[in-house]
Amino acid sequence: MKNIVFTISLLCALTTFSQKTDEQQIKSIFDTSLSNGKSYDWLNYLSNQIGGRLSGSVQAQQAVDYTKKQLEDLGLDKVWLQPVMVPKWNRGIPEFAYFETDPGVTTNIPICALGGSVATPLGGLKANVVEVKSLDDLAILGKQRLQGKIVFFNRPMDPKNISTFTSYSSCVDQRYAGAAEAAKYGAVGVIVRSMNLRLDDYPHTGSMSYGDIPVKDRIPAAAISTNGADLLSISLRLNPDINFFFRQTCEQFEDVESYNVIGEIKGTTYPNEVIVVGGHLDSWDLGDGAHDDGAGCVQSMDVLRLLKETGYKPKRTIRVVLFMNEENGLRGGNKYAEVAKSSKEKHIFALESDSGGFSPRGFSFDCNEDDFKKIASWKNLFEPYFVHLFIKGYSGADIGPLKNQDIVLAGLVPDSQRYFDHHHAANDTFEHVNKRELELGAASMASLVYLFDKYGNDIN
Amino acid sequence: MKNIVFTISLLCALTTFSQKTDEQQIKSIFDTSLSNGKSYDWLNYLSNQIGGRLSGSVQAQQAVDYTKKQLEDLGLDKVWLQPVMVPKWNRGIPEFAYFETDPGVTTNIPICALGGSVATPLGGLKANVVEVKSLDDLAILGKQRLQGKIVFFNRPMDPKNISTFTSYSSCVDQRYAGAAEAAKYGAVGVIVRSMNLRLDDYPHTGSMSYGDIPVKDRIPAAAISTNGADLLSISLRLNPDINFFFRQTCEQFEDVESYNVIGEIKGTTYPNEVIVVGGHLDSWDLGDGAHDDGAGCVQSMDVLRLLKETGYKPKRTIRVVLFMNEENGLRGGNKYAEVAKSSKEKHIFALESDSGGFSPRGFSFDCNEDDFKKIASWKNLFEPYFVHLFIKGYSGADIGPLKNQDIVLAGLVPDSQRYFDHHHAANDTFEHVNKRELELGAASMASLVYLFDKYGNDIN
Repeated sequence: MKNIVFTISLLCALTTFSQKTDEQQIKSIFDTSLSNGKSYDWLNYLSNQIGGRLSGSVQAQQAVDYTKKQLEDLGLDKVWLQPVMVPKWNRGIPEFAYFETDPGVTTNIPICALGGSVATPLGGLKANVVEVKSLDDLAILGKQRLQGKIVFFNRPMDPKNISTFTSYSSCVDQRYAGAAEAAKYGAVGVIVRSMNLRLDDYPHTGSMSYGDIPVKDRIPAAAISTNGADLLSISLRLNPDINFFFRQTCEQFEDVESYNVIGEIKGTTYPNEVIVVGGHLDSWDLGDGAHDDGAGCVQSMDVLRLLKETGYKPKRTIRVVLFMNEENGLRGGNKYAEVAKSSKEKHIFALESDSGGFSPRGFSFDCNEDDFKKIASWKNLFEPYFVHLFIKGYSGADIGPLKNQDIVLAGLVPDSQRYFDHHHAANDTFEHVNKRELELGAASMASLVYLFDKYGNDIN
Repeated sequence: MKNIVFTISLLCALTTFSQKTDEQQIKSIFDTSLSNGKSYDWLNYLSNQIGGRLSGSVQAQQAVDYTKKQLEDLGLDKVWLQPVMVPKWNRGIPEFAYFETDPGVTTNIPICALGGSVATPLGGLKANVVEVKSLDDLAILGKQRLQGKIVFFNRPMDPKNISTFTSYSSCVDQRYAGAAEAAKYGAVGVIVRSMNLRLDDYPHTGSMSYGDIPVKDRIPAAAISTNGADLLSISLRLNPDINFFFRQTCEQFEDVESYNVIGEIKGTTYPNEVIVVGGHLDSWDLGDGAHDDGAGCVQSMDVLRLLKETGYKPKRTIRVVLFMNEENGLRGGNKYAEVAKSSKEKHIFALESDSGGFSPRGFSFDCNEDDFKKIASWKNLFEPYFVHLFIKGYSGADIGPLKNQDIVLAGLVPDSQRYFDHHHAANDTFEHVNKRELELGAASMASLVYLFDKYGNDIN
């Protein structure tokens, strides 16, 4: 009996001690990030000295060189580039668009080509417009009503969802598949209401796909601003015969070589067990990609620096991966997973930040129920930092290809209210990122990585 | 036995039903706020058509007239103005300041007078500067080192606190009492590092007090920007003999009459039990007072509208109070409490929003432990809206004077990371308020008011 009591007392003491140490380590991480963070300075350079970093662009290469150098300066155990072939799409000269209510009476509409779209004819494309709310509307209208027309997809994001990503997910089919579907009914072009909850004048680009439509049958696709979409919609109600004109000179080139940028701290005890933390280094070309996903890159870089600065020696290998080409191909994520699978390493945890540099609200976990229960027991450690959400759900596009039954995937969940004001638009710029919010996100990520490193065996 | 089982079943059924109704009502409030909110439009008008609304100014009167009209248009049961005498302080012509390293070699520093300060002599004030970090430093330096000097209070806000209000509270003594204390040691003026966690060029004003110092002995006090403070500090290390010059023409006038703006929906069952929701209508004069506290005013106005729109008929009287003169006197809050105490009404709950229009994180309650336990049982109703914090603590300045042993006081707790970037400065402007974040705050407040109205008797 005495022995049992002693053992229980010892276990309690050890648990309390370990908890105390976790609290202290996490406090040290947050203190360091908020008083001596590097993420904001890195983001300033990426955003303001380099700017938008579309795959295959000069800026994407500059971002590779810059971040590699910064990781080297941190004194990590290893820094390297992982080659990957990426698509190269170029926007061409500035797009423009207007609608014409009477011959010569025109109203300009802010527009941008969707990523991957073909150009319009050199002199532009002018046609009648048919407004629809969904892909399903196309079948209802049929070839008779759509042949020779520009299809205008105008289903707005639902303001009632609390997570704006939910609203995005239920709208983005218009942007991604609108052109491929409309082409089947003889449409000559597609314009899409921007994926933006705010009413403003910014057109928001983003990826689209032609599916298996032959190159010669592809029709140009573009996004117009939310204000532009509302104006066009009202004008169409007054006069359904409106002509819409747009011109874009975008072009798809041959694939080019680019890189994932990788750095790591070697694990002291289990060097072959790998924890990945990352974001994507490429961005769209309209803004400077500060929120999407400069923020995730610099936070991930700072995770390794924060662990070093706070004197933590990881048992497992902690690896930062700045993935190339999330926006229009996911080649970097796929390449990383391909190499990882052929290696002798075991990836136990991957964490992505690709939802903006806003105040962290928690994490979303893609894992089995048992693992989630264990992870959820750490929740109280994050409450002093107002990080409350531990939910099951989507993690991140770049780490998705790593998925197997053993790995835990997770995504940082920042406050999402402002994200789609900036997403893929010219106003995704550095001044819209708050230094403290960015640093709180980096600290939250570093704390979770610390816990996974320390308790990895208990999780998997 | 059968009867007991039946009774228990009935109670369970009723509890479940009531919970369901609460969930539905709260969802309806959030849906309405996010899809058909009025708060943002009202804030646009207050910020961009009226602007900064310092007590006693023309703009403060415009804000009284405008909000009264808006409340009348809502078809409330009663709308009225509650007269209150308020202090009238005027900034005068734009302040300016520089430091002089050598005769004629000057560096300009962004500066603004603190609210309530006296002017400098008409030609300005020039003197040597002594940098200190706290009020306690004054006694250490003593009259010998401070006589005839300008005291420069330069203790920065601590970036390590997660709530930025904690950092503000532990710094603001420099601004509020710095001049009164420094004057005792013969200082001729005071400049204070702005209460701002960000390094930028905005000076942040705010209230200060001379305590019982006679008018003739008062010394001018001003705030300089955080960048200006860092530059001055570095320059003083290189050359302690630097002269600092500043000029301000601010002036305190006789008190003038102003108003609290009040509107209410009469309770159907307990009309004499009152629930107050409010913010303060006055603001500082440098920006347009969008976050501090236009946001709180329009959210409070929308609480009543959201209850009406969702078809809820309150049992108790729900009253919106837009308090005048929180910033430099609290006369509106004091007047409201004075009138309330002399009336036959019983105030059971008061909720203030005065921490910015950012994403709501929860509420802070000033009440006894029993009430708090009951309130905390509502927490799960707010989790679908990512509103997680139910804590005991500070409520709000304007509702503070209502405090007694029966009333529950509460403050909305929005995300605080960006607040002090804007607080009391020229960049507290409408474009820094996000529509959805503002609307989520209004909906959170309306939901809490709904629960207090429905369960009021169970709480008090």
